[in-house]
Amino acid sequence: MPSSPSDPPPYSASEDPTTLATPPACIADFCLIPLGTATASVAREVAAVQRLLGKSGLSYQMHSAGTTVEGSWDDVMRAIGQCHALLHQNGVVRIQSDIRVGSRTDKTQRFRDKVEAVEKLLEGGE
Amino acid sequence: MPSSPSDPPPYSASEDPTTLATPPACIADFCLIPLGTATASVAREVAAVQRLLGKSGLSYQMHSAGTTVEGSWDDVMRAIGQCHALLHQNGVVRIQSDIRVGSRTDKTQRFRDKVEAVEKLLEGGE
Amino acid sequence: MPSSPSDPPPYSASEDPTTLATPPACIADFCLIPLGTATASVAREVAAVQRLLGKSGLSYQMHSAGTTVEGSWDDVMRAIGQCHALLHQNGVVRIQSDIRVGSRTDKTQRFRDKVEAVEKLLEGGE
Amino acid sequence: MPSSPSDPPPYSASEDPTTLATPPACIADFCLIPLGTATASVAREVAAVQRLLGKSGLSYQMHSAGTTVEGSWDDVMRAIGQCHALLHQNGVVRIQSDIRVGSRTDKTQRFRDKVEAVEKLLEGGE
Repeated sequence: MPSSPSDPPPYSASEDPTTLATPPACIADFCLIPLGTATASVAREVAAVQRLLGKSGLSYQMHSAGTTVEGSWDDVMRAIGQCHALLHQNGVVRIQSDIRVGSRTDKTQRFRDKVEAVEKLLEGGE
Repeated sequence: MPSSPSDPPPYSASEDPTTLATPPACIADFCLIPLGTATASVAREVAAVQRLLGKSGLSYQMHSAGTTVEGSWDDVMRAIGQCHALLHQNGVVRIQSDIRVGSRTDKTQRFRDKVEAVEKLLEGGE
Repeated sequence: MPSSPSDPPPYSASEDPTTLATPPACIADFCLIPLGTATASVAREVAAVQRLLGKSGLSYQMHSAGTTVEGSWDDVMRAIGQCHALLHQNGVVRIQSDIRVGSRTDKTQRFRDKVEAVEKLLEGGE
Repeated sequence: MPSSPSDPPPYSASEDPTTLATPPACIADFCLIPLGTATASVAREVAAVQRLLGKSGLSYQMHSAGTTVEGSWDDVMRAIGQCHALLHQNGVVRIQSDIRVGSRTDKTQRFRDKVEAVEKLLEGGE
């Protein structure tokens, strides 16, 4: 595709992108669903996940639709993968998780800050 | 595919499934992302969503990775669609949302109950 | 929060946002997960969903991680809700779906167009 | 919570779960959304992601709502993290991804197999 002065600069391709480091910080919210279990209740599995996260050293918070974890990309993804492994080890044959994960370079933000930022706007009557 | 005594009963096909009623209750957790906005901050958009939900009559709770809403499938999905419409009306050209939505027939559960069920297991030392 | 000349215009609040119409077009990709079923295989449930969509009149495409549907917000969300209802009717007690849904006002786009737009860039050697 | 003969066996807690290995295989489908970019079009960013995956050695397939990747948990999550890093390196300040990831112990399945399993049921007239 011919470039022109109005084209945005092409994505940098000089380095090998497969050697790039993953983000040093991210916030991930995951909802882990065990399949094929005896009952429709997943409270035991969710409790096991919470205990593993409690030992991971990462900051985390459970809410009604998932659990939010923050840390380096590698640490966070390892922890979620270990949650899968723990449930498999305990007889859960199949697991499907949904992970919402964000990274940003403009600021360091803890997950609690995100709610505060919105609440300030709501209080300000905007 | 030939049926045999060990096959599970086939899915019911006698009625027109497109006349089925949507679930009378569901819990949805959604994360709405505006694209192409001037800045990477989305706090103003999230605040607008909270105000709309406040007027919807539905029970809802914002957390750091999204907002949980409960009600009938139709009411919940209408509210989320109206959030999209509100932002479009205010100049946001493109919106991408992720919605985790659950329905169940074995019990009526409010979103706050889900966290309590897990906390009980954690306290019980299981 | 005091306004100043540099503040972005506040979100329009003159109309009742709960009377807003939902988007006339959207593209939704959903992954439906039945919980508490006898086996970890969900192929039968997914097949039932495909048949319902086939009768819905909406344009849809199944892929390995979900099904993409396009149409008005109301029609698309009704169809997904009916998928939940169909499975509940056939004995599935609990269902969790993840829906990625997008709406935009700058162009009308079919889901097939999205892949083509990227493929053109890849071919162009950008 | 007192145990009784009818209680399911408690989750194994004898080993340190934080030393568990992540799953040796998984299938992940991710949808990466850049925020705060100049335009609402994300085709350039998606193309950059496809090129990185092409060099990763992993099996992957782009569709209209995301990209499916398969491999070990660690390799897959590293690749997605590198996609974030690549876009940050090229000036995208904030990125939000949604990842649907599954692991199972009952069978080895490639993502193409999942669609075939459903198509067989549809052809069988079930």
